[in-house]
Amino acid sequence: MKRGFLLVVSGPSGVGKGTVLHDLMNTQKNLVYSVSATTRNKREGEIDGISYFFIDKNDFEKMIENDEFLEYAHVHNNYYGTPKHFVEKKIEEGKIVILEIDVQGAMNIKRNTDNGVFVFLAPPSLKELKNRIVKRGTESVEDIKIRMNNAIGELKYIDEYDYLVVNDHLNSAINSVNEIINAEKHKVSRSNYNFKEESEI
Amino acid sequence: MKRGFLLVVSGPSGVGKGTVLHDLMNTQKNLVYSVSATTRNKREGEIDGISYFFIDKNDFEKMIENDEFLEYAHVHNNYYGTPKHFVEKKIEEGKIVILEIDVQGAMNIKRNTDNGVFVFLAPPSLKELKNRIVKRGTESVEDIKIRMNNAIGELKYIDEYDYLVVNDHLNSAINSVNEIINAEKHKVSRSNYNFKEESEI
Repeated sequence: MKRGFLLVVSGPSGVGKGTVLHDLMNTQKNLVYSVSATTRNKREGEIDGISYFFIDKNDFEKMIENDEFLEYAHVHNNYYGTPKHFVEKKIEEGKIVILEIDVQGAMNIKRNTDNGVFVFLAPPSLKELKNRIVKRGTESVEDIKIRMNNAIGELKYIDEYDYLVVNDHLNSAINSVNEIINAEKHKVSRSNYNFKEESEI
Repeated sequence: MKRGFLLVVSGPSGVGKGTVLHDLMNTQKNLVYSVSATTRNKREGEIDGISYFFIDKNDFEKMIENDEFLEYAHVHNNYYGTPKHFVEKKIEEGKIVILEIDVQGAMNIKRNTDNGVFVFLAPPSLKELKNRIVKRGTESVEDIKIRMNNAIGELKYIDEYDYLVVNDHLNSAINSVNEIINAEKHKVSRSNYNFKEESEI
């Protein structure tokens, strides 16, 4: 069985990460979303082990102590984290594990694994990103300002990623991420090609 | 202008490198074959600067002294080499320069550039490689033996390459190399994405 890998996808809010990844799930075989662990309460419709692994604070903190997370964060008095075990198990099964995460989380993961492929999804321009956020019509002027400042902060981390995909046209962006995944499957470091086992030629 | 890169393709004789690369030239934009320099005589139909750069022995040896080759070899009393200048110029123009070369040459190139993408094209098995060579019907039993031994020698270098493509089905192999090229175009290290120039958001 050929090992899979972890595909870490970051990019500013509004750039279209969710749409790209959702469409990718329909075109690529062997993709699975990473399932995060959290200490927050389960909401209606959420399923343990699919939406999140819902665990209590004590267990989460024990897992932190035992170095069982690729990354974790403490947000609004709750923990969120990426359990190593889930990701490693899926990779062993040959799966490509998709993890959409902010740059801070991605940088933590980079320190904790050498089996990650890091993709940054960027807007064609900041102006276009602003247009997309404004078009949604759900954000106040103040919120838009915060989002744009966050975007500028995130874009500074591009150099830490392996690949840059500019989401200019959705189909072209999906296609590019698709090709990146297919190329990475051919990395020699992930290969199990073995010609030595042939006794006779 | 976004820089291109050098795509180095190796693989045992008979694996189908020529066919894969020829078909690739028809599907990918911006590909050019690397043009080698040689001291051997021009044959009928060959064009200087396209088939080869035909240069005399003294000039070739001066170029060696001046470190103007990515790699060179001395074969049957003639020199063959890959001029740095040609490759660098094409890369600057945004081209992907294709170089089909044996593992020895590829290893020399690896030492001389950090802008190369190394692809190894492998047969599904040694047995299948032998079948393909035998099917050609042009080789003596002794030649086939030599080729197979060379193949075994070359396959030992796979770990030195970035990507491994198994040429099981031609179209699938072409598609894989195509995807590798497209993915490499998205490498952050080759990106010229610049958001800082935007003064106003």
